[in-house]
Amino acid sequence: MTPAVVLLSGGLDSTTTLAIARRDGFAPYAMTFRYGQRHTEEVDAARRIAADAGVPQHVVVDIDLRVFGGSALTTELAVPKDRSADDSVPITYVPARNTIFLSYALAWAEVLGASDVFIGVNAVDYSGYPDCRPEYIAAFERMANLATRAGIEGRTLSIRTPLIELSKAEIIQLGTTLGVDYSLTTSCYDPSGGVACGHCDACLLRLKGFETAGLLDPIVYAETGTRSAVSRKP
Amino acid sequence: MTPAVVLLSGGLDSTTTLAIARRDGFAPYAMTFRYGQRHTEEVDAARRIAADAGVPQHVVVDIDLRVFGGSALTTELAVPKDRSADDSVPITYVPARNTIFLSYALAWAEVLGASDVFIGVNAVDYSGYPDCRPEYIAAFERMANLATRAGIEGRTLSIRTPLIELSKAEIIQLGTTLGVDYSLTTSCYDPSGGVACGHCDACLLRLKGFETAGLLDPIVYAETGTRSAVSRKP
Repeated sequence: MTPAVVLLSGGLDSTTTLAIARRDGFAPYAMTFRYGQRHTEEVDAARRIAADAGVPQHVVVDIDLRVFGGSALTTELAVPKDRSADDSVPITYVPARNTIFLSYALAWAEVLGASDVFIGVNAVDYSGYPDCRPEYIAAFERMANLATRAGIEGRTLSIRTPLIELSKAEIIQLGTTLGVDYSLTTSCYDPSGGVACGHCDACLLRLKGFETAGLLDPIVYAETGTRSAVSRKP
Repeated sequence: MTPAVVLLSGGLDSTTTLAIARRDGFAPYAMTFRYGQRHTEEVDAARRIAADAGVPQHVVVDIDLRVFGGSALTTELAVPKDRSADDSVPITYVPARNTIFLSYALAWAEVLGASDVFIGVNAVDYSGYPDCRPEYIAAFERMANLATRAGIEGRTLSIRTPLIELSKAEIIQLGTTLGVDYSLTTSCYDPSGGVACGHCDACLLRLKGFETAGLLDPIVYAETGTRSAVSRKP
């Protein structure tokens, strides 16, 4: 099987992306980052998902984005709740995060001799982050082909973004047909005791996605969740 | 003063680049990586250089490239000695290293509100690394402007490479006119007890540079150094 690096956050999108890489015949080498998140639920979820999928290798890379400050996900700023959608970049944006993640993936791909890197970015329900846009991914791919031996040796490295044009509901529907167990995933920016808050941007997008897809979200939300009609109570 | 992020390895090129950033009126925020090198002389040198230059801030970022294997600089493979120049990528190449370094610099620039990142890459005496070429830097810059708030907000982020077209001798001559103290710098891939080996690619390039510039290299080389005529003996 052809090796591919798959960025696996432990969330819904990256878990679906891992299933797509397998469907497309790749041996998925999973890479997760522990980057000073205020919670480690994501890393724990990624370990469960990688084990469940039987990946050939799963690496957890420690990186410290806290030295830069600047984001609610890595500092002590409050995670915004029940934010209405607008075009501004939210405070939960981590500076250059996907660029750093893809750079590590590129390094691993080069060592593995892999020509494919999968990332579950999404330009539809994407919270307004600049590094989720198709033009960004295309520019990264072009740079990556100049950065490495691959470019010199005439191989082409591809950054694959199978979710980029899908809505959250479409992602959930596709993953369900591929047998993804969404009970293993976590999305909340501000979980408490393993329970999703139901109010941060990530919870709101996820809940709306399951609702639109007409499917039940198998994870647990706090009693105060606004969409309790489609979530299983604790 | 305008802030700029300057990648500072502790070597000759990055130290000269720091001096150029100051000459050009920037307040240089220095960033150094501890990345599983087999020696920490580089990080110690970077600390001395940053202190000597009185930079507004110096961060040392821990990253672990060892998880990927694949290079003499981060694993237990032997550093090649007295290699003759050819076009192949040497074993000392660290996969995607400059891409990872620039990605962190991009994150810090965004937090600082800086629009300039300096890196001392060199396309002339560059050891054959793919990520030192001008076309690579141009592609990274283009990607960076799509990756961050800067691009969305209409600012332009510049990756500045003031050394890229200079020979090693020209770099040393320029740095000397700017008052760079090269005794603070370290270049060797395989130092022993603070003494440069004199035989690895980095030592050979450095020694040839000082020789061509007609200047004395103030650092100490092992007695067995091939160019002892231009180096101070221990």
